[in-house]
Amino acid sequence: MQGNAGQRNRRGRPGYDLGKLLDVSVQVFIERGYEGTSMEDLSNRLGITKSAIYHHVSGKDELLRLSVNRALDALFAVIEEERSTTGKAIDRLEHVVRRSVEVLVEDLPFVTLLLRVRGNTKVERQALTRRREFDRIVSDLVKQAEAEGSIRPDVDPALTARLLFGMVNSIIEWYRPNRGLRAPAIADAVTKIAFDGLRNGAGEPGG
Amino acid sequence: MQGNAGQRNRRGRPGYDLGKLLDVSVQVFIERGYEGTSMEDLSNRLGITKSAIYHHVSGKDELLRLSVNRALDALFAVIEEERSTTGKAIDRLEHVVRRSVEVLVEDLPFVTLLLRVRGNTKVERQALTRRREFDRIVSDLVKQAEAEGSIRPDVDPALTARLLFGMVNSIIEWYRPNRGLRAPAIADAVTKIAFDGLRNGAGEPGG
Repeated sequence: MQGNAGQRNRRGRPGYDLGKLLDVSVQVFIERGYEGTSMEDLSNRLGITKSAIYHHVSGKDELLRLSVNRALDALFAVIEEERSTTGKAIDRLEHVVRRSVEVLVEDLPFVTLLLRVRGNTKVERQALTRRREFDRIVSDLVKQAEAEGSIRPDVDPALTARLLFGMVNSIIEWYRPNRGLRAPAIADAVTKIAFDGLRNGAGEPGG
Repeated sequence: MQGNAGQRNRRGRPGYDLGKLLDVSVQVFIERGYEGTSMEDLSNRLGITKSAIYHHVSGKDELLRLSVNRALDALFAVIEEERSTTGKAIDRLEHVVRRSVEVLVEDLPFVTLLLRVRGNTKVERQALTRRREFDRIVSDLVKQAEAEGSIRPDVDPALTARLLFGMVNSIIEWYRPNRGLRAPAIADAVTKIAFDGLRNGAGEPGG
C-alpha cells in the first residue's frame, strides 16, 4: 500500500493508493472480463491518467496478480489457523469451510475474480496452480476425516471436496452485501447442510 | 431438428441439422463468450457459410434462445415428473435435485451456457426469468418440506435452496465427460451430502 490515500491531486480528483486502485480495477475486470478490459477502460473508470496507474503497477497483468493473490493469500491464511491444523480432521475441515465462506463474503470481488480465472496468461496459470494446491489440501482433509471414521465412507473424498467447495463458491453468484445476510449466518447454513444434513433428525454428530 | 443430418454437401463438408448446429455453436459461445462470438466465428468453426447458418436460424440471438431453452425445458420437465409432484415434499425435493444433476451432466454445455447468462439481451432476460421461476419452485419445495417437519427448521428456506443448487450447479466447473464419473454417482453424492450430511452417523432420515 502506498501513502497518499484519500488525498486529492491538483485537479481535484481523489488520490488513489494501491488498495483503492485494486478495488476499482477488480470491479471493472468483473464487469467487462479481464481480457475485455483495457488500461484505457481502467483510466476512464478511475478518473486518473494511465501514467498515474503505472505509478502503482507495471500494467494490467500486475493488477490481476495482486488481486487474485489477495484472495489466495486470505484462503491460505485460513489453512494456517490453529483450528485448521489441530484436532480431529472433521472439525478442521468444518473450520476451513466456515472460514472460507467468511473470506469469500469479506473479499467477494477478489474471490469472484479468482474463480473466473481460466488460465489464459502466466498470472492466471499461477493462480490456478495455487487454487489446485488449496483444493488438494481440502481433499486431503476429507480423506483424513474419512480415515478417522468421522465422514461417511460411501462418497469419494475428491468428489466430496469438490461438492463442498462448489456449495461455498456458489455464494459469489447471489451474495450481495448490504442485504441483511451476514457471513456467519451463511457459514452456519453451509456447515449445517453439508456436515449434518438437511433432513430433520439427521443432525447428530457421529465419529 | 431438420432432415439431412450426416449427409455431406457438394463441397464434401459434413451437413448440419439444427441439433448439430446448436452443439457446435454452444461450444463456441462457451469458449469465446456469447458477446465475443460473431457469425463469422461460427461460420469458420462450422466450416459452412453464414448463409448456410441463416438457412436454419435467424441469427446468433436465435441460436442462444434455442440453446438456453433446451437446458430450461429439460429442467422444467424434471419438475413435472411424477416423483416431483407426488409424495412428501422432502422426497420430491430430493428427486428434483437428483434429476437436475442428471440433466446438468447430460446437457452439460447447454446448462453451462444457461448459467453464464447475465441479462444483457432480451433472450438472456427471458432465460433469467425462467431460471428465477425454477428457483422459486425449488424454494417452495424447501418451504413445504420445512412445514411438514422433514427439514431442519434452523436454516432459511431460500438460502437452503440457493446452497443446494449452488452445489448442483458447481458441477459444470469441473465435470468432464469420459472421465469415469457417471451422472447417477454424482447425483448420489450430492443427495447424500446435502440431505443426510457428511458426518458419519448423521444419515438417519427423520420426519
